[in-house]
Amino acid sequence: MEPRKLASALFDELAAGTHDGIGITRASYGEGEAFAHEAVARAARALKLEVETDPACNTYMTLAGTDSSAPPVIIGSHLDSVAEGGNFDGAAGVVAGLAVIASLRRDGVTPRRDIRVMGIRAEESAWFGTSYIGSRAALGTLPPGTVETARRADTGCTLAEHMRVAGGDPEALDPPFLDPARVHAFLEVHIEQGPVLVEQGLPVGIVTGIRGNRRLPDARCLGTYSHCGGMPRRSRQDAVMATTDLIARLDSLWDEREAAGEDFAFTVGKLSTDPGRHAMTIVPGECRFSLDMRSLDGAFLDHLEEWVTQAVQEIKACRGVWFELGTMTRAAPGVLDERIRSGLLDCARSLGVPHNEMASGASHDSAAFAAAGTPTAMLFVRNPHGSHNPDEAMDIDDFMAAVDILTRWLATEGACA
Amino acid sequence: MEPRKLASALFDELAAGTHDGIGITRASYGEGEAFAHEAVARAARALKLEVETDPACNTYMTLAGTDSSAPPVIIGSHLDSVAEGGNFDGAAGVVAGLAVIASLRRDGVTPRRDIRVMGIRAEESAWFGTSYIGSRAALGTLPPGTVETARRADTGCTLAEHMRVAGGDPEALDPPFLDPARVHAFLEVHIEQGPVLVEQGLPVGIVTGIRGNRRLPDARCLGTYSHCGGMPRRSRQDAVMATTDLIARLDSLWDEREAAGEDFAFTVGKLSTDPGRHAMTIVPGECRFSLDMRSLDGAFLDHLEEWVTQAVQEIKACRGVWFELGTMTRAAPGVLDERIRSGLLDCARSLGVPHNEMASGASHDSAAFAAAGTPTAMLFVRNPHGSHNPDEAMDIDDFMAAVDILTRWLATEGACA
Repeated sequence: MEPRKLASALFDELAAGTHDGIGITRASYGEGEAFAHEAVARAARALKLEVETDPACNTYMTLAGTDSSAPPVIIGSHLDSVAEGGNFDGAAGVVAGLAVIASLRRDGVTPRRDIRVMGIRAEESAWFGTSYIGSRAALGTLPPGTVETARRADTGCTLAEHMRVAGGDPEALDPPFLDPARVHAFLEVHIEQGPVLVEQGLPVGIVTGIRGNRRLPDARCLGTYSHCGGMPRRSRQDAVMATTDLIARLDSLWDEREAAGEDFAFTVGKLSTDPGRHAMTIVPGECRFSLDMRSLDGAFLDHLEEWVTQAVQEIKACRGVWFELGTMTRAAPGVLDERIRSGLLDCARSLGVPHNEMASGASHDSAAFAAAGTPTAMLFVRNPHGSHNPDEAMDIDDFMAAVDILTRWLATEGACA
Repeated sequence: MEPRKLASALFDELAAGTHDGIGITRASYGEGEAFAHEAVARAARALKLEVETDPACNTYMTLAGTDSSAPPVIIGSHLDSVAEGGNFDGAAGVVAGLAVIASLRRDGVTPRRDIRVMGIRAEESAWFGTSYIGSRAALGTLPPGTVETARRADTGCTLAEHMRVAGGDPEALDPPFLDPARVHAFLEVHIEQGPVLVEQGLPVGIVTGIRGNRRLPDARCLGTYSHCGGMPRRSRQDAVMATTDLIARLDSLWDEREAAGEDFAFTVGKLSTDPGRHAMTIVPGECRFSLDMRSLDGAFLDHLEEWVTQAVQEIKACRGVWFELGTMTRAAPGVLDERIRSGLLDCARSLGVPHNEMASGASHDSAAFAAAGTPTAMLFVRNPHGSHNPDEAMDIDDFMAAVDILTRWLATEGACA
């Protein structure tokens, strides 16, 4: 089948089968995700690929190479989505793998290495509160106990229960299905989740690295509730003012980093006084907040932990409050492979595809493969209106430009050398 | 009855009759408030005072003077409380009036003017979302339509409905029961709702003025939800950062005012991202907040309105957000009567009661009388642990010091001259 037609038909089938009335919903280990795995597997069988699944229910669709002893190349991404999300976040990377194989067939290329297209489960942290479940389960890097302790936000059932219902076997995750040292390369195509390529008028980005993070999912500042008129300023223990101080300090830090050309971003996505106790005329005694801090620079992320501790101490001394920061979660930056990046750049140039090199601010399955030691690279595809919403609007021409770059790379050094 | 015994017995009766298991609850036009009105009326009848009520259910307990044509002095405060509040906030001012009359009796003083002790309804804004309902209803200054539109937060019923159930007549509020020009003086004893007298080791404060305010009960900042990793800083429209900017600017303004010795206070008591849409890794597109701004300086309060408009414009330009500030409510500062204040100071000095002069940061019924043109004064009584909580801890000795000052003033210039 012609690669572009194959891709268009699959995107249409996925959209029709997982539309929820507002957007696309493919819950991790839920019905929409299962539909997507079945749809790509059907397309793979039509391409005469070998289809198999692992105990975590990831789907592998393999084009056999001429040298069965050579470690394979994996092209993949996730097939789940957030609730009321878009059609392309994740799925584009799996469809790209199949379109690459159709392109190699069209061009009469038989690769030396196996090329495996991987449909990955459960990447979106919205469902189980943790990221990269499918890829880390396959690689053996899922933190111990996750399948028993992680529960899906909407059902309350554990990851192990959902995995079983989907046909998997949480008991069989060890030994891991994939040996990261026996994977030649992991390649992921993903829509850009920001506006950079749109603003620069470029169809494709070649990703330089994936930000790591430090997160406080459930922090709070505690002060003392008091009458807002009667309490003099020096005696106030105002949790909102103290939290505001912390946010303003982080914003100044971002100013400094940006001026120095160094990577950083932070977000306070959740912020709230206590609805059961707050009032317009009461000095707030509690303020809950989340904090997401990201950077490509792992040493800076380590330094950030001290920085936050120090800032909180100073604010405490100044405002008479205290902080309960809760658990801090950590993810190392995803270091992408220099050699593959350089190969992809050469292919983009020789194909005349306009492109940039840019960091990924968002997290991706690629980070799990890179962290496990597999040489990894990523391509972004231009996408207006952001992701995690029904308005994702990737153009099939831009998508095919990324497919062409991957195909060229696999036909030369990637899978044939 | 001996004034201190009378006061102690009444405070005990009020506490026993309106304790809710945690603190004191006397809802505006509710059962606890009704109990308090009945208790003080019984005590007044035992003192042979004339007891009557007005259409808003305020209670008046009158000691007749020798000159029935002379405008009366009113001593009063409110008998409602917040939910799970304390025993003294409000009630102390009504009990003080009865203790003053008992003191005049003990001293054999018959005043020239009538002395009316007023138990006021519905001062706490927590119940109907608006302050001074009872006093403004009596004075004819309640904003038109309030009885039909204001609803009690817990019952959802209108003020008019609650007033009728309590035995009042909302149709009969006009013409007003009191003519503010025919009241010689309004005097209010109230616990201090902050720690100033405790910190200074003084039993009594003579109030210099009552802060006015500008309030935004239900403001919000609107930005755009976006992926926190994918969206570059310059393109973010972050509602939390923009709200943080506004709060930090107000804090700097407070710094400036304080350094210049000028009065100001602001409080963001309620603050929240949207629980239905917020997430740790999503740039927040909405932040709701309340804002209470107070000052003794009416011209500064007027200026604040422009200041907020200007600040919001600048933040909008910088952060790409917009603000919907909602309705701004306004209360003018309560200007207290210089002559009465000076008289009370003389009495405190001659009685040897240690005292200070201090502004009231909190709002009081006195502000409604002052705004209506009645010469008004207030005394604060030392009170550890703040107000609006079960831990209010006024000492009866401190209370009696305030009663003695008022008694001395009434026996000389206040009601006898």
